[in-house]
Amino acid sequence: MTDKLIIFDTTLRDGEQSPGASMTKEEKLRIARQLEKLGVDVIEAGFAAASPGDADAIHSIAKVIEHSTVCSLARANERDVRAAGEAIKPARKGRIHTFIATSPIHMEKKLRMTPDEVVERAVAAVKLAREYTDDVEFSAEDAVRSEMDFLVRIFDEVIKAGATTLNVPDTVGYSIPVLWGERFKQLIARVPNSGKVIWSTHCHNDLGMASANSLAAVMNGARQVECTINGLGERAGNASLEEVVMAVKTRRDIFSCDTTIDTTQIVPTSKLVSSITGYPVQPNKAIVGANAFAHESGIHQDGVLKHRETYEIMRAEDVGWGANKMVMGKHSGRAAFRARLQELGIVLEGEEAVNAAFARFKDLADKKHDIFDEDLQALVSDEGVAQVSDHYRLVAMGAHSETGSLPVARVVMSIGGKEQQADAQGGGPVDATFKAIEQIVRSGTELLLYSVNNITSGTDAQGEVTVRLSKGGRIVNGQGADTDIVVASAKAYLNALNKLDAGAERAHPQV
Amino acid sequence: MTDKLIIFDTTLRDGEQSPGASMTKEEKLRIARQLEKLGVDVIEAGFAAASPGDADAIHSIAKVIEHSTVCSLARANERDVRAAGEAIKPARKGRIHTFIATSPIHMEKKLRMTPDEVVERAVAAVKLAREYTDDVEFSAEDAVRSEMDFLVRIFDEVIKAGATTLNVPDTVGYSIPVLWGERFKQLIARVPNSGKVIWSTHCHNDLGMASANSLAAVMNGARQVECTINGLGERAGNASLEEVVMAVKTRRDIFSCDTTIDTTQIVPTSKLVSSITGYPVQPNKAIVGANAFAHESGIHQDGVLKHRETYEIMRAEDVGWGANKMVMGKHSGRAAFRARLQELGIVLEGEEAVNAAFARFKDLADKKHDIFDEDLQALVSDEGVAQVSDHYRLVAMGAHSETGSLPVARVVMSIGGKEQQADAQGGGPVDATFKAIEQIVRSGTELLLYSVNNITSGTDAQGEVTVRLSKGGRIVNGQGADTDIVVASAKAYLNALNKLDAGAERAHPQV
Repeated sequence: MTDKLIIFDTTLRDGEQSPGASMTKEEKLRIARQLEKLGVDVIEAGFAAASPGDADAIHSIAKVIEHSTVCSLARANERDVRAAGEAIKPARKGRIHTFIATSPIHMEKKLRMTPDEVVERAVAAVKLAREYTDDVEFSAEDAVRSEMDFLVRIFDEVIKAGATTLNVPDTVGYSIPVLWGERFKQLIARVPNSGKVIWSTHCHNDLGMASANSLAAVMNGARQVECTINGLGERAGNASLEEVVMAVKTRRDIFSCDTTIDTTQIVPTSKLVSSITGYPVQPNKAIVGANAFAHESGIHQDGVLKHRETYEIMRAEDVGWGANKMVMGKHSGRAAFRARLQELGIVLEGEEAVNAAFARFKDLADKKHDIFDEDLQALVSDEGVAQVSDHYRLVAMGAHSETGSLPVARVVMSIGGKEQQADAQGGGPVDATFKAIEQIVRSGTELLLYSVNNITSGTDAQGEVTVRLSKGGRIVNGQGADTDIVVASAKAYLNALNKLDAGAERAHPQV
Repeated sequence: MTDKLIIFDTTLRDGEQSPGASMTKEEKLRIARQLEKLGVDVIEAGFAAASPGDADAIHSIAKVIEHSTVCSLARANERDVRAAGEAIKPARKGRIHTFIATSPIHMEKKLRMTPDEVVERAVAAVKLAREYTDDVEFSAEDAVRSEMDFLVRIFDEVIKAGATTLNVPDTVGYSIPVLWGERFKQLIARVPNSGKVIWSTHCHNDLGMASANSLAAVMNGARQVECTINGLGERAGNASLEEVVMAVKTRRDIFSCDTTIDTTQIVPTSKLVSSITGYPVQPNKAIVGANAFAHESGIHQDGVLKHRETYEIMRAEDVGWGANKMVMGKHSGRAAFRARLQELGIVLEGEEAVNAAFARFKDLADKKHDIFDEDLQALVSDEGVAQVSDHYRLVAMGAHSETGSLPVARVVMSIGGKEQQADAQGGGPVDATFKAIEQIVRSGTELLLYSVNNITSGTDAQGEVTVRLSKGGRIVNGQGADTDIVVASAKAYLNALNKLDAGAERAHPQV
């Protein structure tokens, strides 16, 4: 008999805490819809108490998601739990996930509370959460460095208080599989009534062990894995959903459980998250990297040709590679465009948004022969961005470079509706463009990162530019896509400025 | 008492088998020198029988490396072993690494040999290798899917034949830590005289388990780990050197062994390998990702401020982050330039190469205020590339783009010394540039990938462009760096064309 392994995706919460990965409500909604299509059991949609924007995003996701459970994080205090409870109210299935640190170092240095106080807080938070929903998860932050006796005590108490899922996080990514498995074995053996709750593992990847540690927990009784798409998350990130899911599926001979993930949606989800957050996936990333199924060596290719299984343990198609290649071109009509967006799970609010997106599609089709799904995603991302804030907007631009002389750029942009123009020289046309923008805006930001990826292949591909700006301690990623890399760069820069302009300060917890 | 854990780096062999990551001899030499500085015990420098170029690169590395062992791979046949033996001859410490597949599926479908024949071949190869060196490693390819009894038998025989290191590869990345550890435990218990050899683990990352599996082997007696910088390698790559080394170091409480790696050289080595191969490192990669030590969340930052250990298990400085930030500018002289190159382990052959590099440095300093170590690396990479082949060379170019009209580019290039010129339009200035080059060259290649990364931060940073081209089944990565992204793109495209022009076909084995 095969147990169900619950997949708890925290891309929208822990993943969003990656520097500069904060997302707009529209972006979160698109990812949430895709996560549901992927078949994740629980979507951690955010941390309601962090900001009104976070609470609103969770609320909106709770409204539209039909099958997955929608969850909000909450520290173990009344304000946080109530904010979470309100945010998930519209959900068909809603969960509150409350946490408090249980390690000596965290209790003493960060919380400045005694162990008794910590237990009291945890119990009160769980009880309050149960007033909003029957589905309450409790996390012992920094469980990896917590004392076993204290963990047993606090877990026992929160079960009595009504917690239905107990999460054991390796907050600092410090464990290794053999130890992490042992921790679950002991906890499940020692905590009274441990069979009445779901045990959950939440691992960070600082030593590259997050997915392996998660699987070790599963082998020792955990039946929920908290993970993110592409392993996104603070520092080295979280356990990768794709690695955990495919390991369990590929090694059914070892694991006595399985997920209900539609694995063919893994690659499309990976691409969507990468595109929205601006976080690239390295080619040698397991499962979702561009090379994960690529074979170079002569001997090896020979082996593959002779017998597929000699070098393949998974099939690329099973995780969604190669599906939906080319879709549209300049002769594609409005109905086809609309239908394809629907198939991609992209919902545009209102006729006006569809019109605007279709106009952009036609513009793109004039410049680019084949329009791929990824192009559509990028196009709609641009659209989404424009909807949220366009205080700074690109009106027109030109750039000229010639070997032997300094590149120049001219930018015409509108700031709050008022047009301004500037010319600048720079080390390259992109540098000149950014300098022209800064002559107008004088934002005082620092450029931390600039990267470009082709959305699709071929020389007429759109470039997707990510610009990471920092100002006064805040970091944002801006994105822009265009067949012209200089124009894409200008769009990305303005997108980042708009995000800095719009964003309020938020608190982010660490589990 | 702490055992020594041998770090066997195969970036130059297994890592080079990543699609498009093939390197020139000069590039391999630079990486080998850096690996020695990092303190790796064994450098697998290539596969001598693959091509005369491979053999020559190993030979050159064997000549210059002083402390690390230099190793060549060889299939278990006379020609391969002799080629390896010749290639490592100049080494102070040389190793031959011979392998043959031992799994039923590989023996039957790929080798078409009986188990008896496989044992015979392995024994003969090891004996022959011992004629060249006392340091002989034997690998049982696809050990993960081999029968235990057969593994015990073949390992017993190769020990008798003189093998000193026995390597157990998870060739297809199929294992999980608990199984992989158990395999080592059983092998070491059952193979006669197992205490007289070093047991080695070689893991692939298809399920994201490579580093965790390697550590499980170490916990069960392995004392050599085969790994690569950044986890480079075919498909999802190999175990990451940085993860294995830092896990063992950080968890000294668990591991009864340690490495002699200078961990402060990890990040510089990572950057060098990424720059030379054109393989980016994702920001959320453990240890060497740009975010690996970055903290976003408010609560978390608070924790870090209050007490460093609340969220940090390693220090960024310990792995080489933040070292050697700014170095030079336009007023830096030739002596300073030379000294810095030396500190970076960059050796330019001959006065002419130094002159050319210094001239490029001065050009760059005119366009860019602060010159960082990474800029110097890129500059010398460009130099190295130019030395190898400049059949196609950029003479001059210009690009112009303006919103509302199609971008245009003009390229003047020399082909084998003869200048030609073309103009073209395209979706963007980069596309137009590539089209202009193709009007002249008509190479018939396909553009598979185009990516740009800033080498350093700041708006005047150099862009480093990677272009991956495919032609007739061959794939190459071209790189180019310039403060002007369009110029960098043209350089990268021509670099890739030169590589396609120069490269002969090579066979690559899979272990």
